[in-house]
Amino acid sequence: MSFTEFPSKLLENAVNEFASLPGIGRKTAFRLVMNLLRRNGEEVKKFGECIIRLQEEIHYCRVCHNISDTEICNICSDGSRDKTLICVVESIQDVMAIENTRQFKGVYHVLGGIISPIDGIGPADLKIDSLEEKVKSGGVAEVILALSTTMEGDTTNYYLFKKLNKYDVVISTLARGVAVGDELEYTDEITLGRAINNRNPYHQ
Amino acid sequence: MSFTEFPSKLLENAVNEFASLPGIGRKTAFRLVMNLLRRNGEEVKKFGECIIRLQEEIHYCRVCHNISDTEICNICSDGSRDKTLICVVESIQDVMAIENTRQFKGVYHVLGGIISPIDGIGPADLKIDSLEEKVKSGGVAEVILALSTTMEGDTTNYYLFKKLNKYDVVISTLARGVAVGDELEYTDEITLGRAINNRNPYHQ
Repeated sequence: MSFTEFPSKLLENAVNEFASLPGIGRKTAFRLVMNLLRRNGEEVKKFGECIIRLQEEIHYCRVCHNISDTEICNICSDGSRDKTLICVVESIQDVMAIENTRQFKGVYHVLGGIISPIDGIGPADLKIDSLEEKVKSGGVAEVILALSTTMEGDTTNYYLFKKLNKYDVVISTLARGVAVGDELEYTDEITLGRAINNRNPYHQ
Repeated sequence: MSFTEFPSKLLENAVNEFASLPGIGRKTAFRLVMNLLRRNGEEVKKFGECIIRLQEEIHYCRVCHNISDTEICNICSDGSRDKTLICVVESIQDVMAIENTRQFKGVYHVLGGIISPIDGIGPADLKIDSLEEKVKSGGVAEVILALSTTMEGDTTNYYLFKKLNKYDVVISTLARGVAVGDELEYTDEITLGRAINNRNPYHQ
């Protein structure tokens, strides 16, 4: 079924909005809108208002640029977190992923992207200046560069290293190695090579 | 990445709303919300308002129960459509599918579902009374039962036939046969059997 004509402009608008989302085609969009139409009024209103409020009321933490409901996010305002240890990540998703490990007790700095000339994203588009400012003003012992292990990630790592190396701070990156649960046979050679070179003493 | 903790309640609410849609899991919902967050404010507001307006302003045609922006839908208020020929369908999607063929010049009657005891849908839940009313009041020459060829569709067909047969009206159903473009080898035996029994004289 193609959608040359809609019986209602309101329906068509709603389908178009949903179809503008990534990975949602027009058929799926139509199915989603029909699902909303079958619900009661209050529920649908809540759905719409939720989106509007998200846009109007969301904050980005003034310190780490993570998403937040307040001026300063929960992590930055948590007295038990180590403010001298900053983990630099690309996105909010990465903060959530690391938080879920419950292994990290420092704070974050969200760059809001990664240097990618192909996508026209340069250092000036990222929150790099405020990171340098933090390091410059002292009180930061270590910066962990926790970026993707892609070419863009490595480029950004290198750029940040050059920027921050002149200050008195330890710069580290995430360990590269065989993922937990992976079989060696199916691990790519670059990862395996790094895992051998960066081998650790065995702890029982 | 699981989502035990969100950095923002607003974000979490929006993700929950999207995840309540059929076929949208929490990861996809999160991706969709992040896409909205990257857009500018006006666009996001339009998205939310579009959903609210859809719910508040949508009408169902008083005559055929199709979705509509007005009291009477475009099809029912179109003077060139044959009001004596009513095509009975299950849903709005079916109206759109038939309209897209540009082969039908009559009007529709949307049942709003199909008789399905398993899902607890009986004749009383469907717009059957208003259909009978139309036929009873005269002026209807033919009713085409254009329902799915499933067990539920056949049940509904039979029920409608019993209901309408006592009036002076022609009752027909869609032709069953081999789909255009289908190879006979892969056509199921019931369809092929019907296609042989209902064979048509060959027109050049």
